[in-house]
Amino acid sequence: MEKIIEIVPNFSEGKDKAVMEAIVGPFRGLDGIKLLDLEMDPSYNRSVVTVIGTVEAVGKGMVESTAIAAELIDLRKHKGEHPRMGALDVLPFIPIRGISEAECIELSYQIGEAIHARTGIPVYFYAKSAKRPQCENLPDIRKGEFEGLAAKMRDPFWKPDLGNAPHSSAGAVAVGCRKPLVAYNIDTDSSNRKKVLQIARRIRFSGGGYRCIQAGAARLEDRNICQVTMNLTDYTQTALYQAFEAVKMEARRYGINVTASEIVGLVPKACLESSLKYYLGMDEEEELNLDLEGIVKLAKRHLLLRDFTESKIIEYYLD
Amino acid sequence: MEKIIEIVPNFSEGKDKAVMEAIVGPFRGLDGIKLLDLEMDPSYNRSVVTVIGTVEAVGKGMVESTAIAAELIDLRKHKGEHPRMGALDVLPFIPIRGISEAECIELSYQIGEAIHARTGIPVYFYAKSAKRPQCENLPDIRKGEFEGLAAKMRDPFWKPDLGNAPHSSAGAVAVGCRKPLVAYNIDTDSSNRKKVLQIARRIRFSGGGYRCIQAGAARLEDRNICQVTMNLTDYTQTALYQAFEAVKMEARRYGINVTASEIVGLVPKACLESSLKYYLGMDEEEELNLDLEGIVKLAKRHLLLRDFTESKIIEYYLD
Repeated sequence: MEKIIEIVPNFSEGKDKAVMEAIVGPFRGLDGIKLLDLEMDPSYNRSVVTVIGTVEAVGKGMVESTAIAAELIDLRKHKGEHPRMGALDVLPFIPIRGISEAECIELSYQIGEAIHARTGIPVYFYAKSAKRPQCENLPDIRKGEFEGLAAKMRDPFWKPDLGNAPHSSAGAVAVGCRKPLVAYNIDTDSSNRKKVLQIARRIRFSGGGYRCIQAGAARLEDRNICQVTMNLTDYTQTALYQAFEAVKMEARRYGINVTASEIVGLVPKACLESSLKYYLGMDEEEELNLDLEGIVKLAKRHLLLRDFTESKIIEYYLD
Repeated sequence: MEKIIEIVPNFSEGKDKAVMEAIVGPFRGLDGIKLLDLEMDPSYNRSVVTVIGTVEAVGKGMVESTAIAAELIDLRKHKGEHPRMGALDVLPFIPIRGISEAECIELSYQIGEAIHARTGIPVYFYAKSAKRPQCENLPDIRKGEFEGLAAKMRDPFWKPDLGNAPHSSAGAVAVGCRKPLVAYNIDTDSSNRKKVLQIARRIRFSGGGYRCIQAGAARLEDRNICQVTMNLTDYTQTALYQAFEAVKMEARRYGINVTASEIVGLVPKACLESSLKYYLGMDEEEELNLDLEGIVKLAKRHLLLRDFTESKIIEYYLD
């Protein structure tokens, strides 16, 4: 089985379609690689790109793409709502299939080095690839943003892992391996944002809830309902079904009902499988022999997933 | 309102009733203080004492009690299954009523100093009273036990907060403020320990579950059933009802039913109140106007508490 990884590079350009098309160019039409998504956010002035592929193809494409971004994006002229320190701001590596976390960390080192060698952009290794505790958390690295980078790098505590000073126009980049993050929202039949926020507070880690749930409340203006909006930071620890059932349990307190749920972006097949096993009364270790169509059908039934198709499952793009 | 605290001193003597009676003597018949429990464990060779009272009475009684323990317990001759470093091994302070956590920490410093002044026993401030990160976790302080104390204290990293060297026969003591810990078990109708352990794993923090739940599985031999056995390390963050409902939810996977639950030792009234509000459909901020009798009745109904009476609620002993 080929080693497949996902990368989700974030670039500091969210308005100019032509610039972003040039930057993602190296991911198009190459063997062994697929551009799954290019999401441009003008107010953030930032784009999030989702790519999967083999180790070799992704590495080659990513170095090319970074070189183009360094040429076309000038942080000295960049403004946007989202904090940023680089043209390519952050580059997460996510193991998908046939590759261990340790291999993925090693790969992030190799590609970080290749990017630095090609462009001169200094690199911080972050998340699971962090070589120092202060580099585990991206917002800590990015604090002070592009404008504060030169001063920050003179502090030995914040010296980059590769390089000594910021790239004059492209800043710096954080590169590292992390778990797949699942963006998951649960619709309620309530328009009371305060109560839905109470539900979110109870289930999230910061409120004493589940270890790998970050959660808040959001109003869907067009339907006049509120949803619990979540990130599952590690679905292998806290499962989708736990988030779904915990929201239902907390909602009962207020006489609020759960009407549907949705996955934003892509989800690994294993994330759905492990939760379906709960509803099917299976042990974790038992094999669930379902194709993508079967998984979608049962996920809709048990998790009330809406707007969900096979194309939301990462494995749809493989094979 | 008077400031009421609970202390739970652990002494390294679990066999000799006469010795323990002498040690708890200062807690008996004093105004403003009540000895709630003296639990002697012969195989651990350790006793756990539970006392509540006013700040002044508890302080006075505790210094006296420590002085007697230092006279009657000789760690050089002590053997038991439980790790220990002192005659008085650990002294937790728990805020109960009318006292803030900050005041409780301050009180632990004052009483720690009084104990050290009276007996010469060196003191480590631990838990919320820790003055250094390495002293937050009791097992870290106690590692090496009594026999390793002298060498450990020569390492500047492990110098005690008060004193420089172990007391020759009474060792050292950890003193500090912590949250009330609620020991809570949930009975199932299953005798399958493996499956009940799976349930426990799913709900506990270390398995991706709730932030303040430690959990395992235990078999009740006489009834041939298994229970999920838990510590709630901070009920103000993770509530009793969340533990109870999460166990029911996980148990459904295996067709296992929850038949009852039990609180081991004492529980603060506020812990029950906050969970009853969930079942009554009330907001957290709403006032629950119930006396102890009413709380017991509803806790039995909604949490299926067994062997539960008003005398399990700390406030029963106040007023």
